[in-house]
Amino acid sequence: MNLIVMKFGGSSVANAARLERAAERIVSAYHSGACVVAVVSAQGDTTDELIKKAGEISPRPPKREMDVLLSAGEQISMSLLAMAIEKEGVAAISLTGWQAEIFTDGTYGNARIQRVIGERITRELDDKKIVIVAGFQGIDKRDNITTLGRGGSDTTAVSIAAALRANICEIYTDVDGIYTADPRIVENAYKLPEISYDEMLELASLGANVLHNRSVEMAMKYGVPLAVRSSFNESEGTIVKEVSKVEKMYVRGVTRDNDAARVTLFGLERGSGKIFDVFELLARKEINVDIILMANNADGSTDLSFTVAESQLGTSLDILEKNADFIGAKRIESDENLAKVSVVGAGMASNPGVAAMAFGAMSDAGIDISMISTSEIKISMIVAEKDAERGVNALHEKFLR
Amino acid sequence: MNLIVMKFGGSSVANAARLERAAERIVSAYHSGACVVAVVSAQGDTTDELIKKAGEISPRPPKREMDVLLSAGEQISMSLLAMAIEKEGVAAISLTGWQAEIFTDGTYGNARIQRVIGERITRELDDKKIVIVAGFQGIDKRDNITTLGRGGSDTTAVSIAAALRANICEIYTDVDGIYTADPRIVENAYKLPEISYDEMLELASLGANVLHNRSVEMAMKYGVPLAVRSSFNESEGTIVKEVSKVEKMYVRGVTRDNDAARVTLFGLERGSGKIFDVFELLARKEINVDIILMANNADGSTDLSFTVAESQLGTSLDILEKNADFIGAKRIESDENLAKVSVVGAGMASNPGVAAMAFGAMSDAGIDISMISTSEIKISMIVAEKDAERGVNALHEKFLR
Repeated sequence: MNLIVMKFGGSSVANAARLERAAERIVSAYHSGACVVAVVSAQGDTTDELIKKAGEISPRPPKREMDVLLSAGEQISMSLLAMAIEKEGVAAISLTGWQAEIFTDGTYGNARIQRVIGERITRELDDKKIVIVAGFQGIDKRDNITTLGRGGSDTTAVSIAAALRANICEIYTDVDGIYTADPRIVENAYKLPEISYDEMLELASLGANVLHNRSVEMAMKYGVPLAVRSSFNESEGTIVKEVSKVEKMYVRGVTRDNDAARVTLFGLERGSGKIFDVFELLARKEINVDIILMANNADGSTDLSFTVAESQLGTSLDILEKNADFIGAKRIESDENLAKVSVVGAGMASNPGVAAMAFGAMSDAGIDISMISTSEIKISMIVAEKDAERGVNALHEKFLR
Repeated sequence: MNLIVMKFGGSSVANAARLERAAERIVSAYHSGACVVAVVSAQGDTTDELIKKAGEISPRPPKREMDVLLSAGEQISMSLLAMAIEKEGVAAISLTGWQAEIFTDGTYGNARIQRVIGERITRELDDKKIVIVAGFQGIDKRDNITTLGRGGSDTTAVSIAAALRANICEIYTDVDGIYTADPRIVENAYKLPEISYDEMLELASLGANVLHNRSVEMAMKYGVPLAVRSSFNESEGTIVKEVSKVEKMYVRGVTRDNDAARVTLFGLERGSGKIFDVFELLARKEINVDIILMANNADGSTDLSFTVAESQLGTSLDILEKNADFIGAKRIESDENLAKVSVVGAGMASNPGVAAMAFGAMSDAGIDISMISTSEIKISMIVAEKDAERGVNALHEKFLR
């Protein structure tokens, strides 16, 4: 059985015309001989409208009920898509999260899929139907409706593809693939025909904003090939799959993330104890720390710098100041006009020259690097926000022309 | 356990302010010591908006998918009501049709409730929660979402009240009870403190438009007392329950239904055969025949008159004319400017004078009666539509002053 899972985001089903276009694409895949499961998000503004309705009732609505409310959004879009497909003359059936047997944990608003049973979906596919499944939602073991949080529909699509051993999971979105850099800021950016899961994960977390990390992690875990394609044209898109390791260093993309702020604690007592305390305090408030830099001073004290998302800077400073005596820093400084630019690609670790090339490119462009982080497949540099766009262009020119 | 089921219609939950009013009423019942299950319809215009969305996709959307679509409406209103209740400081939980274990047959768009299991509802009530249940929806035995058709939320409320042996099922609506006649056309109409199921059934089918027949039938079958109350004031409303039979004739109300048309077939062959054929033909097209009048002529032929809803007159005439040869009527006539006025009340059968009083009242008002139908608890008369309002007033004056 050739099985395709096709996922359509909110903008791809925003109105009747777009729903019809999605239906045509699905029906065309069906007529080419594939079994098709389509996963849909809520229509364009539906989620915002529902959130607004809740806001009129309560400033802090109970999370369980928010999930009941929001899950109505996909129920609407999936039934409309089924209608559009039936109008094309093919039998279709829409299934909510519980009907599609998508079981999650009980974390309302940010649930994780634990199991997709898929019996019902398989039965309907065997009946020659196109099956539409509500993205973003599931049920917990007590039959309560849950939602998956940001990027949840992608995760639904990948989970179903994994459970049903689909040949491919196609993610339809408003961009037509994964680019070497953001085409809005790098003129020569080009689309990658394929990319590995690891590289995609680095690109996603660095702001490429096309696929949610959780869905890529799941695709990698279960070996589901992903295709990122445009809902608005027939272009081939980018395939995300396990790519055999290459000795040769191969840069895939350059990214920028302006959402970076730095905190520096000066004059900490040397040793891992105080550093542990700092990160423990931040973790308790669910603050994600990204790049960490530590420097030991001649006087025996230690300076500690780390970056967080700009939105979490205020909370981070509050916590640190409240616990100033306990931490014992001489001074706390922060800077929010920072950005992170990164070069992503397999084989970096085995090519020590890459870092040097990256620093050289930045230096040639006259850009100061204040922090550096490297991994198997990426090099990230913290620079002033005003330099970020130039930095991305310089790196793209160096590695990807 | 003192258990109340409270049902709120679409206008009672139309916006945030009304949802809050409904929540206050529910919380007040809860604080007075009752366990409360609230059943809600979709908000004001939601259903119409969803129907419009479907219409933009397909002129004839598949019924299964319409039910998936429409059932999202109650999912929205129920979660918002739960939020409003939690804001009042009481734990609440909303349950969809499938979560509340409301099983129906598989007739999409017009399903009938077959069983309400109620285990989940009971468990949540035991946890001291107020339980909100989506009206109008259920699931069939294959886990497909179904909707109950017109008046469905009333039926949901009564079914739950029956399954859980509630002390009372309160129907909150935009009128504050059952009146002796429509107050918009009869100045002296007044509210009845109580009424029997039988009488309510006659009043409902005659156009009182407050409770749907199916819900009253179900309440009667399971002995669930109903209260019809206003969502907008604290007035006591009307209780519908089994009322002990009284010898004394007791008129409860006077109604009018302008949606009446008459068909007359002249010169049919005498005997029941042809008359059976006529009604068999109409039944096949699901046309409901109301009052039937038959007159045998001196020449050995029979004239047959019957009334149907105005909207079904065209179809009725089509069928009869297509089968004119088979039926063998000499002539077919019709009249759609008719109305039915009725007097409803227990004990009519044992008080033969009632009919005479009714005819006398109409005669005194100078109104011609063209057809008459009587039952245990009602007398209906077909009159010209222009005379209906005067007729209702004359009857109300006679029986209810």
